Amino acid sequence: MAEKINRHSRGVFIISVTPFSKNGALDLESADRLIEFYIECGVTGMTILGIMGEAQKLSAQDAIQFSKHVLDRVAGRIPVVVGVSGAGLGNLSDLTKSVMDDGAAGVMVAPMPGLVHEVKLKNYFGEVCKALGDDVPICLQDYPQTTGVNFSVETILDLTRTYAQIVMLKHEDWPGLTKLSQVRAQSGTDDTPRLSILTGNAALFLPQELQRGADGAMTGFAYPEMLVNVVNRYQEGDLNAAENLFDAYLPLVRYEHQLGIGLAIRKEILFRRGVIESPTVRAPGPALSGVDHAELTRLIERLNVRLSELQ
Amino acid sequence: MAEKINRHSRGVFIISVTPFSKNGALDLESADRLIEFYIECGVTGMTILGIMGEAQKLSAQDAIQFSKHVLDRVAGRIPVVVGVSGAGLGNLSDLTKSVMDDGAAGVMVAPMPGLVHEVKLKNYFGEVCKALGDDVPICLQDYPQTTGVNFSVETILDLTRTYAQIVMLKHEDWPGLTKLSQVRAQSGTDDTPRLSILTGNAALFLPQELQRGADGAMTGFAYPEMLVNVVNRYQEGDLNAAENLFDAYLPLVRYEHQLGIGLAIRKEILFRRGVIESPTVRAPGPALSGVDHAELTRLIERLNVRLSELQ
Amino acid sequence: MAEKINRHSRGVFIISVTPFSKNGALDLESADRLIEFYIECGVTGMTILGIMGEAQKLSAQDAIQFSKHVLDRVAGRIPVVVGVSGAGLGNLSDLTKSVMDDGAAGVMVAPMPGLVHEVKLKNYFGEVCKALGDDVPICLQDYPQTTGVNFSVETILDLTRTYAQIVMLKHEDWPGLTKLSQVRAQSGTDDTPRLSILTGNAALFLPQELQRGADGAMTGFAYPEMLVNVVNRYQEGDLNAAENLFDAYLPLVRYEHQLGIGLAIRKEILFRRGVIESPTVRAPGPALSGVDHAELTRLIERLNVRLSELQ
Amino acid sequence: MAEKINRHSRGVFIISVTPFSKNGALDLESADRLIEFYIECGVTGMTILGIMGEAQKLSAQDAIQFSKHVLDRVAGRIPVVVGVSGAGLGNLSDLTKSVMDDGAAGVMVAPMPGLVHEVKLKNYFGEVCKALGDDVPICLQDYPQTTGVNFSVETILDLTRTYAQIVMLKHEDWPGLTKLSQVRAQSGTDDTPRLSILTGNAALFLPQELQRGADGAMTGFAYPEMLVNVVNRYQEGDLNAAENLFDAYLPLVRYEHQLGIGLAIRKEILFRRGVIESPTVRAPGPALSGVDHAELTRLIERLNVRLSELQ
Repeated sequence: MAEKINRHSRGVFIISVTPFSKNGALDLESADRLIEFYIECGVTGMTILGIMGEAQKLSAQDAIQFSKHVLDRVAGRIPVVVGVSGAGLGNLSDLTKSVMDDGAAGVMVAPMPGLVHEVKLKNYFGEVCKALGDDVPICLQDYPQTTGVNFSVETILDLTRTYAQIVMLKHEDWPGLTKLSQVRAQSGTDDTPRLSILTGNAALFLPQELQRGADGAMTGFAYPEMLVNVVNRYQEGDLNAAENLFDAYLPLVRYEHQLGIGLAIRKEILFRRGVIESPTVRAPGPALSGVDHAELTRLIERLNVRLSELQ
Repeated sequence: MAEKINRHSRGVFIISVTPFSKNGALDLESADRLIEFYIECGVTGMTILGIMGEAQKLSAQDAIQFSKHVLDRVAGRIPVVVGVSGAGLGNLSDLTKSVMDDGAAGVMVAPMPGLVHEVKLKNYFGEVCKALGDDVPICLQDYPQTTGVNFSVETILDLTRTYAQIVMLKHEDWPGLTKLSQVRAQSGTDDTPRLSILTGNAALFLPQELQRGADGAMTGFAYPEMLVNVVNRYQEGDLNAAENLFDAYLPLVRYEHQLGIGLAIRKEILFRRGVIESPTVRAPGPALSGVDHAELTRLIERLNVRLSELQ
Repeated sequence: MAEKINRHSRGVFIISVTPFSKNGALDLESADRLIEFYIECGVTGMTILGIMGEAQKLSAQDAIQFSKHVLDRVAGRIPVVVGVSGAGLGNLSDLTKSVMDDGAAGVMVAPMPGLVHEVKLKNYFGEVCKALGDDVPICLQDYPQTTGVNFSVETILDLTRTYAQIVMLKHEDWPGLTKLSQVRAQSGTDDTPRLSILTGNAALFLPQELQRGADGAMTGFAYPEMLVNVVNRYQEGDLNAAENLFDAYLPLVRYEHQLGIGLAIRKEILFRRGVIESPTVRAPGPALSGVDHAELTRLIERLNVRLSELQ
Repeated sequence: MAEKINRHSRGVFIISVTPFSKNGALDLESADRLIEFYIECGVTGMTILGIMGEAQKLSAQDAIQFSKHVLDRVAGRIPVVVGVSGAGLGNLSDLTKSVMDDGAAGVMVAPMPGLVHEVKLKNYFGEVCKALGDDVPICLQDYPQTTGVNFSVETILDLTRTYAQIVMLKHEDWPGLTKLSQVRAQSGTDDTPRLSILTGNAALFLPQELQRGADGAMTGFAYPEMLVNVVNRYQEGDLNAAENLFDAYLPLVRYEHQLGIGLAIRKEILFRRGVIESPTVRAPGPALSGVDHAELTRLIERLNVRLSELQ
């Protein structure tokens, strides 16, 4: 079994898509191929059942089946984090228990809507920690663009100090560079434990975030090898190489970052790369037009030209 | 089996709470008592698995179990509508199939978030109608305060014309009196079929809405007998009696209408009235303080005084 | 000159409408009548240039002219608070300087949008206090339904402790009864100075809020005498009389509380009462339909019946 | 006097910053330098008093003074569009009259908040058109991320057909590529007049938008020469050159695109380039930290390296 996530986790935890066949059913064969693809790309870990994994469109049974399948297939080669966010604490703890029993390395929790005061937000995570049990490590998802809930630096640090099991921050507030610098500077100190910080938000600022102290990325991208290589080169000390590589992909990073249709783009590229059998997004979901397809093709061709220049 | 909902449905469809025992488990004994209570109050129908039924905190299994239990117990005495809103069409149609097989009279659907253009909203309901099948009557829930999605009068009328199965509007936009008047005036015409309009939003404007053409109410309140009597007296032509009765309850209607804590208040009253075993709201949820309890007691005492004056 | 607002201010500060003639121009004759009407109703103070005073639709020149006119006419008989909220600190301080020079008793400030973390909100009020100067007493407007900014109890108390000039809270968060109880209990203590708390939000919960420690109301209503009498009877210790009176008006309180159209209703009643020359709301603004007019007439007639019963 | 904007306007209308001296006062000397800088960069037009021109923090007097100064200095060399959005129609038409008299080429109008139904949105623009007078050409600003108001393709086309004076769309919905394609395809047809479409949103998708039929850009960027050259090369038919140039700047485009702090970055670069005397943003506003400064320096150095490679 892979190590659980902890305060020193680093590298790239890829946010996995959930592959479906044309009719929308779970496609577990593609899931197997996808897992091997991610591992070959060199990812450090995987995160499943996130928003970009269409978790909210999975039935409860789908969610259990998919996570069990992934955990079995990965078989401890890399840690797998599972998104368990939801409205009721009961549902959260049931799903958590199930996936931890199946070998998950931890869970990712975004706050439910409506937690508009910091004390409410802290209390919520207190309830979550208690419901999950203190042996379950938690990755806090800070993604106000979707949740409508805002974490201040103070709240993040307070949660870090109070709950030993809150070990990781999926940082995707935007704009969030200053926040990342502040959390990094004020944790790992005498009074506040270190926190693993992985950046999300489609990695749009990955090089800047690494320089500001991120430990890597927890995000999705149809070219996971870019994320891995940027993080590796940065961690090896070759910042220019890291940044040159990132910038080559930036037109596509920006393109995949489009809310909604971005997921259809990501699945289309994974499909073109032969990783998944169908680019299907579950209904109701976005679909690419002919213009979109042509535009994507052009962006990929330009990427290949740029990558060949960089070699 | 009760009649399915249709374009002429009228009266009070009570939005049912979901009773839980102190530990948060489904309390089916209380559910039985609650059903009999609602029927004795004279409601025309029931709606379960709504937002105020804590649907979003039920597990998939809870939802199926509770709806089956209610449908069995009601046994066709009154029509039961089931809320099936959710993110994925697959989940919507699976739950719908299950409850319609168990004897539901129709389903209630609120739009998923993000449908910011009218054409998107219409397309969404097109997809929903197709996924559910055209023998399932639909109650459209128009509740922008919670969904963030806005129906214009034009969109409602267009959906009414286009989809024979969209037969009912749960009207709870706010302020929404003008919208109600317009939908009533512009449906049941040569080109647009009649629509059953039941008002929600805690019935805060029930007498005004009846006078503007509502067919009744689909909402929750801990005194369902008020809703029933107001609608009945109005439909019998005694508007003053209807309005006097409503106004007597208005301080409590307003009190229960408080977002979030309103549900705790409603369950507390049902508990005090001996209908449900415990006022428990599933975690994370609101709880009443000592001050709240005393305030509620005072409001109930004042209600009783006022009711005795009215006799 | 009237006393400035302070930590012990109480009673009813009526949120004044801004009267316009039919063509939308400032109607200063009606303003004079309105001022006398408010004073005859027994209000303790007035608040001008609030949201319900259509401040955002006044030109800068209108705002200065109207506030100067009101301050001159009131001539120190009652304190007048002026709403000065806006995007730039420069504009805030310029308007504040002007109205304080003209004799205002203090200013009302709502936070600008986007202050999503408590530390940002505190810093903002720090900047505001500095820009206005410490001799200007401030009424904090807590109205998240419109501003999108949320004050926690902790933030309110912190601001109270830190800035001597923040002396009053216009409480209109919703649901907000618990918050009011908490602010009242935790201020006026050894470490936190007392805060005058006046309730807003159309006074929808006025009796409950008085019982929870509010010092009165700062809100608008077309029957200011109700607000005054409810507060007076409560402060004299006759809670039942206060609440009976309030409940008689509650159908209209609720009716005027409708966002947007509520202002047209308020101005229409003031027009029918002969206070203002025209019910005009500045464009683009809501207008009442024939149905609305008839509905309002009926509600007013019912009010008069109920009031005669109470005598 | 420059030509008014029209249905065939094209090129780059730069969204101008408003320069302030260190103490926050209007800096008209810097404004002169800025105007010459923009014109030397080859922009086709300018847009002042936009959101990124801090219009909401200018006093009414500042706004009049600044726009008059700019119009005098530009002296008809290029068309100048003025942002006039605001809450009251009276304010809109007063400011419009003033700037059109001073020689503006048209005005930019974003919808006021709360226009949640398409018919309301259309009615609003009907009122605006009438208030401004039909000789004032209007650029419609479609920026839901800030206004909260959503234009559908149908609404844009309808407005185009109905109001001869609505001649230009500032397209900055996001994701908005499909919308742009649709508006382009469905205007300039037998029944719908052509619309000039200029893209905003910090130009994040400029090459894609040009290929989808945009006539250019109306946005801000501290390197206006990039916008100009990308549009020119595209219009000359050299798409690869356009896209190579754009991609070189993309790391900085993305960096300046950060909401809030992006304006501080833009002003800092203009300051470093010697265009404006001070990078001051009016209070309350964002400020750059030491880390931000170093990060920006690095991004600029990398840009210069990349530009030299491209030559």
